[in-house]
Amino acid sequence: MKKKKEKLAFGRLNLLRGDTLNSSKRIKIGFIGGGPNSFIGYTHRLASRFDNKFETVAGVFSTDKSKSKKFGISLGISEDRCYADFLTMAKKESQRSDGIQAIGIMTPAGYHYKIAKEFLNRKIHVICDKPMTATLNEALLLEKVIKKNNMVFALTHNYSAYPMLREAKYLIDNGKIGKIHLINVEYPQGYTVGLKKNEERNVLKWRLDKKISGESMILQEIGTHAYHLMRFVTSLEVKELLAQVDTLSDQLTVDDNAFIILRMQNKAKASIWVSSAATGGENGLKIRVYGNKGALEWFQDDPNNLKYTELNRPTKIITRASAAVSNLSLKSSRVAAGHPEGFFEAFANIYSEFADTILDKSIRKNKNNIFPGIKDGIAGINFVSAAKKSSKKNGAWIKLKS
Amino acid sequence: MKKKKEKLAFGRLNLLRGDTLNSSKRIKIGFIGGGPNSFIGYTHRLASRFDNKFETVAGVFSTDKSKSKKFGISLGISEDRCYADFLTMAKKESQRSDGIQAIGIMTPAGYHYKIAKEFLNRKIHVICDKPMTATLNEALLLEKVIKKNNMVFALTHNYSAYPMLREAKYLIDNGKIGKIHLINVEYPQGYTVGLKKNEERNVLKWRLDKKISGESMILQEIGTHAYHLMRFVTSLEVKELLAQVDTLSDQLTVDDNAFIILRMQNKAKASIWVSSAATGGENGLKIRVYGNKGALEWFQDDPNNLKYTELNRPTKIITRASAAVSNLSLKSSRVAAGHPEGFFEAFANIYSEFADTILDKSIRKNKNNIFPGIKDGIAGINFVSAAKKSSKKNGAWIKLKS
Amino acid sequence: MKKKKEKLAFGRLNLLRGDTLNSSKRIKIGFIGGGPNSFIGYTHRLASRFDNKFETVAGVFSTDKSKSKKFGISLGISEDRCYADFLTMAKKESQRSDGIQAIGIMTPAGYHYKIAKEFLNRKIHVICDKPMTATLNEALLLEKVIKKNNMVFALTHNYSAYPMLREAKYLIDNGKIGKIHLINVEYPQGYTVGLKKNEERNVLKWRLDKKISGESMILQEIGTHAYHLMRFVTSLEVKELLAQVDTLSDQLTVDDNAFIILRMQNKAKASIWVSSAATGGENGLKIRVYGNKGALEWFQDDPNNLKYTELNRPTKIITRASAAVSNLSLKSSRVAAGHPEGFFEAFANIYSEFADTILDKSIRKNKNNIFPGIKDGIAGINFVSAAKKSSKKNGAWIKLKS
Amino acid sequence: MKKKKEKLAFGRLNLLRGDTLNSSKRIKIGFIGGGPNSFIGYTHRLASRFDNKFETVAGVFSTDKSKSKKFGISLGISEDRCYADFLTMAKKESQRSDGIQAIGIMTPAGYHYKIAKEFLNRKIHVICDKPMTATLNEALLLEKVIKKNNMVFALTHNYSAYPMLREAKYLIDNGKIGKIHLINVEYPQGYTVGLKKNEERNVLKWRLDKKISGESMILQEIGTHAYHLMRFVTSLEVKELLAQVDTLSDQLTVDDNAFIILRMQNKAKASIWVSSAATGGENGLKIRVYGNKGALEWFQDDPNNLKYTELNRPTKIITRASAAVSNLSLKSSRVAAGHPEGFFEAFANIYSEFADTILDKSIRKNKNNIFPGIKDGIAGINFVSAAKKSSKKNGAWIKLKS
Repeated sequence: MKKKKEKLAFGRLNLLRGDTLNSSKRIKIGFIGGGPNSFIGYTHRLASRFDNKFETVAGVFSTDKSKSKKFGISLGISEDRCYADFLTMAKKESQRSDGIQAIGIMTPAGYHYKIAKEFLNRKIHVICDKPMTATLNEALLLEKVIKKNNMVFALTHNYSAYPMLREAKYLIDNGKIGKIHLINVEYPQGYTVGLKKNEERNVLKWRLDKKISGESMILQEIGTHAYHLMRFVTSLEVKELLAQVDTLSDQLTVDDNAFIILRMQNKAKASIWVSSAATGGENGLKIRVYGNKGALEWFQDDPNNLKYTELNRPTKIITRASAAVSNLSLKSSRVAAGHPEGFFEAFANIYSEFADTILDKSIRKNKNNIFPGIKDGIAGINFVSAAKKSSKKNGAWIKLKS
Repeated sequence: MKKKKEKLAFGRLNLLRGDTLNSSKRIKIGFIGGGPNSFIGYTHRLASRFDNKFETVAGVFSTDKSKSKKFGISLGISEDRCYADFLTMAKKESQRSDGIQAIGIMTPAGYHYKIAKEFLNRKIHVICDKPMTATLNEALLLEKVIKKNNMVFALTHNYSAYPMLREAKYLIDNGKIGKIHLINVEYPQGYTVGLKKNEERNVLKWRLDKKISGESMILQEIGTHAYHLMRFVTSLEVKELLAQVDTLSDQLTVDDNAFIILRMQNKAKASIWVSSAATGGENGLKIRVYGNKGALEWFQDDPNNLKYTELNRPTKIITRASAAVSNLSLKSSRVAAGHPEGFFEAFANIYSEFADTILDKSIRKNKNNIFPGIKDGIAGINFVSAAKKSSKKNGAWIKLKS
Repeated sequence: MKKKKEKLAFGRLNLLRGDTLNSSKRIKIGFIGGGPNSFIGYTHRLASRFDNKFETVAGVFSTDKSKSKKFGISLGISEDRCYADFLTMAKKESQRSDGIQAIGIMTPAGYHYKIAKEFLNRKIHVICDKPMTATLNEALLLEKVIKKNNMVFALTHNYSAYPMLREAKYLIDNGKIGKIHLINVEYPQGYTVGLKKNEERNVLKWRLDKKISGESMILQEIGTHAYHLMRFVTSLEVKELLAQVDTLSDQLTVDDNAFIILRMQNKAKASIWVSSAATGGENGLKIRVYGNKGALEWFQDDPNNLKYTELNRPTKIITRASAAVSNLSLKSSRVAAGHPEGFFEAFANIYSEFADTILDKSIRKNKNNIFPGIKDGIAGINFVSAAKKSSKKNGAWIKLKS
Repeated sequence: MKKKKEKLAFGRLNLLRGDTLNSSKRIKIGFIGGGPNSFIGYTHRLASRFDNKFETVAGVFSTDKSKSKKFGISLGISEDRCYADFLTMAKKESQRSDGIQAIGIMTPAGYHYKIAKEFLNRKIHVICDKPMTATLNEALLLEKVIKKNNMVFALTHNYSAYPMLREAKYLIDNGKIGKIHLINVEYPQGYTVGLKKNEERNVLKWRLDKKISGESMILQEIGTHAYHLMRFVTSLEVKELLAQVDTLSDQLTVDDNAFIILRMQNKAKASIWVSSAATGGENGLKIRVYGNKGALEWFQDDPNNLKYTELNRPTKIITRASAAVSNLSLKSSRVAAGHPEGFFEAFANIYSEFADTILDKSIRKNKNNIFPGIKDGIAGINFVSAAKKSSKKNGAWIKLKS
């Protein structure tokens, strides 16, 4: 009782994540990709350091061996474990008694499958950046390799790891908004506005190459995030969709905007809007879910608050780690209510849960991981494929493969 | 110079609307509809009183003569000018030397045309609630009567009269966001959520009757507002659209949600979402317009602020009546920056501009009224018709009639 | 039951203010002050028109008779009831059988008492702009005249008439935040920033003259608003205060900023900050009240929402006219939830309640008017006097006269 | 040129913090305090891991040796470097060739000086939690030890390390708001509301003991943060202050609210309000600074945005890491604009800068560290002392020692 009071006064601190490991057996991890000047590389490595559950011991940071070494050393990795190609790394590491137990992959999507396969087959767990693959075929092959080896696979759809987004999921799964009939997800960014023809490749790089980044820039890059968020929060699957995917900028060769209308399997209707053509937009990911008893709204710009409205009642602003939240979101929090958490904390949650799942066999058996996995990756690539197909057919309804 | 400073210090007050009329010849106005307990009746009458440009002298407030009289008297109208049917009113008023010069109509849409016709043909100007008519045919007939008689016709799409929405139009018309390529309008309300089968008629009343309210509840009721706002702010017309119009509540007979994707004549793409199924939603009308040089965002919940973002610059919050606004929006303002204006002030702008246009023949010649008129009404009904048609054809693209 | 549902769906419309008067006996009102280019003149007249409870029939709009006439006529007043001095008006109007029943006064504060006295003594009710008087002596004399004649006196501290501010009062008066221990009121404006020495008089006009505007520009102008709001919302009185009142701009002769710390009679502590030196500030009036069971926050920039936090619960956003509000605030509303009301609606509430009190003798007997009156006016002048005194004594504690 | 474009498109990523060290000589750090269930312990350790600049190798986590060992091991520390008292640790570590180069201290304030002294005298750099000491005397003694040994000392006033707060400092230091005349800082928390008499010690722990936590709970705990923020952002020092420091809760023995009015050395006026009695308040730290050319506002609840208003111009929302920011704030950022950073990122900035200063002798010579140091700690304790003194003297003005 007193204990409860104490937690409330300073925001239920005792329940938050820590950086200790009883076993003291930190997971040895390596990374493929994310070399110098890579923001996503820094992000993955930081996420792995966050809760002190991993030890970074190997990596491929460049196809140029001396560059890879130089960078690896600057990260604190031994020279002999800085590799220039992933196959050598997979072989060598799997032969060491102190070899890596997990690998983080952050290359362009088209390389994910062939890299992951080598590690999975050598019983090394994989955490992989999104989008999962460039093609549906690769996604399905990846699923087989994972199943065959029974390894842990995490996909870093990081937005789904924000505590208050998870609180939204919790409230929905527990019937707090009743039966869902309407969903809206929007993700208006502006990162391609103003790019001139001759600047496109310089900025978008491999994203111009469909073989390694998939058939749609905008859908692979952020559409998969939006789609995963919708499925994650609502626990609903999509039956069919129609889409209008466009290149709104006359300076670009890739698509930069998509409007999608979706029919859910429970008969709810949904819409998704993703864009890099929303001039001035930074990262405006927002999800709104409406049920017959209430509604929820979450906005990545204000990620520590969740708006919850019960029918005919005032909207409540539920704050992260406050007395009002469930254990589901609390376990994803690290600091007391009122102190903002952000992008890295959410990203780190996936790393921590990936670690917990590797370390605790009871979690692995469960299979109901809170973090995104292979099924989510396949769903995402299916979505991209269906949306592109619909758009090419001038907005025809396309059924999602299940 | 000093004068300018003075204006700035207290918000450029001298330029704001007043309640004086040089001629002292206030416009005599009557009303059809808006009897006891009618919110829209109060709104129209208040709007007419706002700037002291009208004198309410006649009306039909009930088809029961004694009720109409009782109510009219309570408004300050002479007993003999309280009528029980519009035709008698039109005839009698047009015969008086001090008869009404203008009529405000706020009956269900299906009656608008036949009422308006009687007054227009007797040279009485009309200000009419939206949606303009129940059918396209009535809309086109109305246009003919207006043209034939050369009268002033105003349609109360009141949201377009918010000062900062007009500031958005001003900035767009003056190239401040460059060429528009992307538009998003949303209007998520929740007013039908939770209604039981047996309550629908009690609440939605004539809106259940397609003959008098048109073929779509949600599109007529709020879709026309959203559509007008988009056309008004951007000065763009729509080429074609596809729509998904649904009845998401299993308790309703009318539609309650629509997702619409639009192709503009300038090749921009747009989406509109209107709903009365957005649980807990009050009146969340929002418009975002993206051009190659900048973007604008306006939200009816915060109507005195306009977000303006130039490419690669910080978003500016332009406030109503501040030093930064144009004369276009300033003329639509009444109080200094920082003092909120709201729904009624916007509504009253249309009444005031309707009055100005009646009184000043030079404005009438111009034809470029800032307030919505017959063309906007026709566009709205066209939109409703096209969206319903597309939805029935499972999302086929439908061209808008021009 | 059905009735209740209906009200909720469209925002409890039936309970909102109307513009009808059963008796059809509108109150004849005149105005002193508020001539051409006066914003506050327009505001008072508009407020009187809002709910159709007054008829404007007389006024003094200039000391130059021809100007007063010209302006009065443009407002729709008969030429013979446009006066050039208030004494003539008081005499003439009190002699007419159709003479004014009420007078609105919006001259500088130093004239309020002597004008009001002439009308009160002739049994004409008074509604008066704030600050009430220039000196405490005038305030006390005014009180005597009001009591002697038993007339209705309203003071337009308009912010206290915002519906959601009244909802705050309702929640506090009904114990919803427990015992109050802490209050914060702030009112940071920026209207004097940037004024040069030679522009001060041009902008601030009579406010430079202590005889007619009182001993402190900033405290009279906005300090009295903040102070009234605090007393109104909390139903608490102040025991003593200390203040630091400054002229922060080196270009001004009047004070432009005040920090005040207050000890309430119930032992709560409070602080008030009012300023015209808050660069860029428009009208940021905010009040926060903390009790041992909850807290309330209201901000004039967002006047239709009230934040209500119960201890250890999520903050609720209570919206105007929603299902959650009390009748007290609902009666002060005119439009459904989600449609913004603003400055004028609040101002008009005081006019409507002033009218209701004149018309209904049972309300007059009650004496517990919701609108501000003579006691509030006296309290305000006492506050200004105490704060200035404290500041001159370098922050000494000064007891408030009760 | 192309390079610049690229940075803008994805938020100027290349300039952001990384996790590499050219020398690969990470700093060996130990910690005193922050054992099991300590939130601040986790925070300091995480901050040290953030940018991969430290290696945690030693610590005292409990005065019980077995507990300290158990916890240290779970963090990955060798058993023999888990100590039970700081003096033993200081001695042993200073004798090792691979001993710690830096120590993080997060015990109650009253122990800081005597702990820090032992390490400083052994040439080990110190990063220390706030408040710096319990008494002014300890603060001055600490200063001497630091100077004598010429070591780096950082004080974790973490709020000052938020990028946009630093952007505010940059804009002020570069004259962008002109001469400052007015400052307002508020920090309303609610963490002691609702605590019963018998719960106070359980929750506030050592904070009840003035010997180890100083003479004011509220001023030491959060007042020092607010005061440092004001000095940091404005680069102004305080001349004198008056304060009202109260225990508003009748269940507490410590103070829980303070209102402070300040006169700055440049003649600006300021006010600070800090509270743990603001029911429902989480961590509402806000600072507003007004100059004769503009104003700035920053709010910890929305830390990635800074409001900047130039006189008579629209308020700009400057976002973290956007094209508009200076290098000063950019260097404190890690992720592209639109992805929220929060509490931990700010905290980690201090750790990173502490490391940079240790590693780079040219920075150490400069002495103008961006992170808070000994002078800030002394200023904070001086502030607490002056405010308490003023309050005891019923609000007398107290000069700050310089």
